[in-house]
Amino acid sequence: MGQLRVGMVGYAFMGAAHSQAWRTVNHAFDLPLSARMSVVCGRDEDKVAAAAATLGWEGHATDWRAVVERDDIDLVDICTPGDTHREIALAALAAGKHVLCEKPLANSVAEAREMAEAAAQAQTRGVRAMCAFNYRRVPAVALMRQLVADGRIGTIRHVRAVYLQDWIVDPEFPLVWRLRKDVAGSGALGDIGAHIVDLTQYVTGQSITGVSALTETFVKERPLPTAAAGLSAEGNGSSGRGQVTVDDAALFLARLDGGAVATYEATRFATGRKNGLRVELNGSRGSLVFDFERMNELQFYDAALPSAEQGFSRILVTEPDHPYMAAWWPAGHPIGYEHTFTHEMRDLIAAIAAGQDPTPSFADALQVQLVLDAVERSAAASAWVDVEAVLAAV
Amino acid sequence: MGQLRVGMVGYAFMGAAHSQAWRTVNHAFDLPLSARMSVVCGRDEDKVAAAAATLGWEGHATDWRAVVERDDIDLVDICTPGDTHREIALAALAAGKHVLCEKPLANSVAEAREMAEAAAQAQTRGVRAMCAFNYRRVPAVALMRQLVADGRIGTIRHVRAVYLQDWIVDPEFPLVWRLRKDVAGSGALGDIGAHIVDLTQYVTGQSITGVSALTETFVKERPLPTAAAGLSAEGNGSSGRGQVTVDDAALFLARLDGGAVATYEATRFATGRKNGLRVELNGSRGSLVFDFERMNELQFYDAALPSAEQGFSRILVTEPDHPYMAAWWPAGHPIGYEHTFTHEMRDLIAAIAAGQDPTPSFADALQVQLVLDAVERSAAASAWVDVEAVLAAV
Amino acid sequence: MGQLRVGMVGYAFMGAAHSQAWRTVNHAFDLPLSARMSVVCGRDEDKVAAAAATLGWEGHATDWRAVVERDDIDLVDICTPGDTHREIALAALAAGKHVLCEKPLANSVAEAREMAEAAAQAQTRGVRAMCAFNYRRVPAVALMRQLVADGRIGTIRHVRAVYLQDWIVDPEFPLVWRLRKDVAGSGALGDIGAHIVDLTQYVTGQSITGVSALTETFVKERPLPTAAAGLSAEGNGSSGRGQVTVDDAALFLARLDGGAVATYEATRFATGRKNGLRVELNGSRGSLVFDFERMNELQFYDAALPSAEQGFSRILVTEPDHPYMAAWWPAGHPIGYEHTFTHEMRDLIAAIAAGQDPTPSFADALQVQLVLDAVERSAAASAWVDVEAVLAAV
Amino acid sequence: MGQLRVGMVGYAFMGAAHSQAWRTVNHAFDLPLSARMSVVCGRDEDKVAAAAATLGWEGHATDWRAVVERDDIDLVDICTPGDTHREIALAALAAGKHVLCEKPLANSVAEAREMAEAAAQAQTRGVRAMCAFNYRRVPAVALMRQLVADGRIGTIRHVRAVYLQDWIVDPEFPLVWRLRKDVAGSGALGDIGAHIVDLTQYVTGQSITGVSALTETFVKERPLPTAAAGLSAEGNGSSGRGQVTVDDAALFLARLDGGAVATYEATRFATGRKNGLRVELNGSRGSLVFDFERMNELQFYDAALPSAEQGFSRILVTEPDHPYMAAWWPAGHPIGYEHTFTHEMRDLIAAIAAGQDPTPSFADALQVQLVLDAVERSAAASAWVDVEAVLAAV
Repeated sequence: MGQLRVGMVGYAFMGAAHSQAWRTVNHAFDLPLSARMSVVCGRDEDKVAAAAATLGWEGHATDWRAVVERDDIDLVDICTPGDTHREIALAALAAGKHVLCEKPLANSVAEAREMAEAAAQAQTRGVRAMCAFNYRRVPAVALMRQLVADGRIGTIRHVRAVYLQDWIVDPEFPLVWRLRKDVAGSGALGDIGAHIVDLTQYVTGQSITGVSALTETFVKERPLPTAAAGLSAEGNGSSGRGQVTVDDAALFLARLDGGAVATYEATRFATGRKNGLRVELNGSRGSLVFDFERMNELQFYDAALPSAEQGFSRILVTEPDHPYMAAWWPAGHPIGYEHTFTHEMRDLIAAIAAGQDPTPSFADALQVQLVLDAVERSAAASAWVDVEAVLAAV
Repeated sequence: MGQLRVGMVGYAFMGAAHSQAWRTVNHAFDLPLSARMSVVCGRDEDKVAAAAATLGWEGHATDWRAVVERDDIDLVDICTPGDTHREIALAALAAGKHVLCEKPLANSVAEAREMAEAAAQAQTRGVRAMCAFNYRRVPAVALMRQLVADGRIGTIRHVRAVYLQDWIVDPEFPLVWRLRKDVAGSGALGDIGAHIVDLTQYVTGQSITGVSALTETFVKERPLPTAAAGLSAEGNGSSGRGQVTVDDAALFLARLDGGAVATYEATRFATGRKNGLRVELNGSRGSLVFDFERMNELQFYDAALPSAEQGFSRILVTEPDHPYMAAWWPAGHPIGYEHTFTHEMRDLIAAIAAGQDPTPSFADALQVQLVLDAVERSAAASAWVDVEAVLAAV
Repeated sequence: MGQLRVGMVGYAFMGAAHSQAWRTVNHAFDLPLSARMSVVCGRDEDKVAAAAATLGWEGHATDWRAVVERDDIDLVDICTPGDTHREIALAALAAGKHVLCEKPLANSVAEAREMAEAAAQAQTRGVRAMCAFNYRRVPAVALMRQLVADGRIGTIRHVRAVYLQDWIVDPEFPLVWRLRKDVAGSGALGDIGAHIVDLTQYVTGQSITGVSALTETFVKERPLPTAAAGLSAEGNGSSGRGQVTVDDAALFLARLDGGAVATYEATRFATGRKNGLRVELNGSRGSLVFDFERMNELQFYDAALPSAEQGFSRILVTEPDHPYMAAWWPAGHPIGYEHTFTHEMRDLIAAIAAGQDPTPSFADALQVQLVLDAVERSAAASAWVDVEAVLAAV
Repeated sequence: MGQLRVGMVGYAFMGAAHSQAWRTVNHAFDLPLSARMSVVCGRDEDKVAAAAATLGWEGHATDWRAVVERDDIDLVDICTPGDTHREIALAALAAGKHVLCEKPLANSVAEAREMAEAAAQAQTRGVRAMCAFNYRRVPAVALMRQLVADGRIGTIRHVRAVYLQDWIVDPEFPLVWRLRKDVAGSGALGDIGAHIVDLTQYVTGQSITGVSALTETFVKERPLPTAAAGLSAEGNGSSGRGQVTVDDAALFLARLDGGAVATYEATRFATGRKNGLRVELNGSRGSLVFDFERMNELQFYDAALPSAEQGFSRILVTEPDHPYMAAWWPAGHPIGYEHTFTHEMRDLIAAIAAGQDPTPSFADALQVQLVLDAVERSAAASAWVDVEAVLAAV
């Protein structure tokens, strides 16, 4: 069996999740290529060496430019913050490596556009690029898409999407990189809002055409990370605090090109909601509801049933005929968060082996970026803003 | 329109619920007879006078024997503790009054048998008798029965019934009449266990044929009511405590005559469960679940649906084509506990007006009593006990 | 005991609900005044006579002007569509009658302002006016307000409110009065959106200061009622169809004066959601969630508990120490929709007897109207619109 | 770092789950020994070779006796059906290998006793033995045990445990080995009933002292596996059917040595329940509920909270201070079924490295076997049966 030799850049939260998926994918699925965890790359020699040992990579490196040039690497997996995606992805594609890039694709439309163009060119040379919107690979989400595509809920009227977290409710939580615009691009909007934009467009098969938004930063100043750690921050004087430069919460209304209207909300201030990604679709023939905190379930209301028997059914999406589930355990045995990445790697490997383009493509991810951009412009203008078209953008 | 003139004996919890139902029934339902709240009867003149005013009865009385003999009374509604049911019901039936009697029908099989015999005789004279198992009149329960009768869950394999309360978890809760065998007959068994016996037999259409039981009294001694009220109990010496002479909890396994096996549990020690009457049925083609704490909902699992779409659906039983619901509010507007009594009165009035026997009959209630009796004998013997047949009993 | 003699105008859905409440309130609560169901008024003599019999009113009338002038009427209860509220309310207040008026208070800000001014003047003469936002009287909602007021969820960051129904999803559902702007004022916005505007402002103690909105009419033409009933509509030619002149759905973002941001959605196209009034509040110390389809429950997340024990708790709001519940049944016994009206009448009677102003006042209802007005203007302008202040309005 | 070289016998469902755990455990947890997947053993050369490749084992073998004798194996992991456990475990322990054995420990009390004795002797030589009741390692279950141990629910009054599956509801489902007493020992009782016996005793810290049981086989004859596969079964004549020799369902009441009373039910005929392992505990100060279909949640009712705030809280057991969870993802990101095995391997490796005995021990598993034996004897006798003591047994 052929190998797919992977070089991964970044080894924090996403790196750990990807590692578990690369390690598992060929044991769960029968695939024509076998993933090999060749090298992990990071800036700090000691830390990346430790990460390689913990996460199970054969080697480690500190220069990502060298990694993307190595002959014995087939795919570059980008797990770094958004400000470095563009540079690494462009270099990897230029070097003829397949690329898997974490979301959001980039910190700006301009960067994302450049990446999508590069991916389009690389594609002509048989080089594949994919953006890692892992929630598409939740079996319940894939089933949701199938039911919509099969017309089971009819014409979609309403999309109701939230992604609720609460990890920075405490005003003393430090100013980590995800709260800095220069590194993260945006706050809740790009980090988790991007997921519900992609997910709802994926399951409905419709695109957002315009938005009306507001964003808010509830806590405007926070302790610098070192100050929070109890040390005096060098050069920070007496305060040891810095400005939060991203949104804590982003809310927007939207219209989709199939006629649906929508509400979206992404926040890190929803106390008690830990990873509350929820989507509800209401159609002319039925409704569907998904909540990631109960990721093995999908709710389906089928208005074609007799009136007295209609109700939201809780489908336990663990049957062998549910998407991806034949690879796992008997019915009723839940899978977890990391499985979404294993499924992602499965689809990516299958596409590469088949000489096909995996989805979501960089162009798909650019379109998400255009929506996020419209949200920011709408919030700034306090007015409706149309989403720019990808074609115009690319 | 003709009237149905009601005399009610007892005015505590059940009396209040019945009063609200008598007051409401003709405004919610179009019926050939109009209920008239003629007289309420109790032992204490002052208290019953106050109750009449509060609950909305035209008159009050202290001698139930006089009430059952009054020419201007058509129906006697018995809301007293179980130790008085037999005497009042027999007198009322003998006087040619229709009778509605709270459950359990009696405190012993012997009493219940006598009452069932009297009701059978009265029936030949056009006099009707009904036992007030109100939970049959929850719309979701009535729907459950319909779905079973229509074969929607196939052959029933399992019955799983609990009735969980927690109002005497505190060992300092006083020794009220419901904890005294001489008044109440039994504890959790007759008070709430009787409901799940009747309910499961009603919805399945099957009868319990034998049981294996255990009962337990966790707190064996409690403060006497007056002591609990902070007064020294006359003649109770230093302790002011008395023996609990009924079960706190009753658990039993059962077989039903249609081939199902069952578990039953009734307890007043299930901390956090306030009125947790729950029934689950598993059949060869589907399952049904009801929980009174969410009385407007019924869960239905239909195994005839495509495999990937099967799930427990939450039917909101508030549609106009659901049992009883056309009388109430638009879909999605819940009804409450008292409505079960209003429905009970509706069915009773309709049966009387039509010259038909209402259900559950006293014979049905006797059969429940026979099951309770088997439970007590099984618990005492630590062995399986068959339930005596009603025919033999009557 | 003194009486409160009620004349009710209108006898459809709201009239039926109010009737049940007037009939019940003095039997459930101990109050200084006794409600008397004196007269019900409607345009059609036969129909109103029948309604009086069904709903239990002593008399009936066809001229509301005569009713509001009657000496033997103390309170006028307005249950008609919104286009008649102003005229009836002004006449009743002028005649010195207390007024209970269904929501929305009026079909326009101008009307609502006039009514609020009249109510303010009447108040100086001891005449009371109240707008019937009944959901404030759900015990779980009242508990929600208490917990917020007690600081249990800290500073509120997010309000998430939806009111979802599905009764006009079918495009062949006829063009009833609620779909005509001239009678109803607006569609989902005023009918159900008004409820979540009032409810969220009530429980948070904050007012909406500005909104960004969109509205949509999915089905723009519907069969005329007579056509739907199978008759040829006079003068409607071949089509028998008419224009829907109100919104099917209204969505808006909002800011509240306490710093919270909010999403609101009111729709009649959420298939499977029958009466899905849901509100979630996220605060710095906790969260609260209410869903009217499970109206006896309140979810509370208390971030003051130890981290490992935090979770959304399902409080069954049926304890005697919960608002209004001491009047009803033992713990765990649900109440229903109509009880919200009984509680409303209780609070109204108590206020009148005490010589106090009941809430919500007409001024409160005017403020809701100003929010609805801002929503309509924002939707038309595709831009943020500030909510006009009540003081300026009055 | 030292290695723990594993030889696994059996490679079906349990073998696949254990493989994923062995592969993952050292990447998720920091442990003093590193698991090495040395060899997998099965009867069929081709199949076990394929399994080794799929599941990721270095080598394969067909003779388990040779495997347990190999010098380069430190631990034997037994994943075969119950009829082979005793022989393999005894040989492995005699050879000085640590043993992990799937549950139920054996098919009879006699076998289990012999194994427990062997384990006790091996322990004196530093050889460790553990029975694989994996559900103890669900974080929510471990939290449940902690809360009980900390006295948070007080004295336990009630245990309510079910393990509901539905995979043989179809009477045409074939007669697989799990339906044959000679291979599986018993049916639902030993397969899934064993789990709830172990789990409830583990979380309560109490032991079952006696039981009253019934068992049922609803479908007494089934197609032989080959016949079901569409082939004519050699030598089976015209029928192609065989007798089901185990229970489809086992129900029992029990008493525990801490004073609790309990209901247990294990069935493979609960239509719609896929892996419905549920346990509820009611104590004098609170209650706890766990449902494996929502394995990342624990419900806790704390009666020490103010009355108006009490409710069942849904604790999302994904916080870093929850058992095992610091190894995984941020709060709100679910884990799955296989993680229970990874946790099991973690605890086993930690115990071996520390020179301590892992739990549950073979003696613990023998005690479960004694309960199952009492259940079978009670069902046969239709009478209460006391559970034999382990000490007497060993």
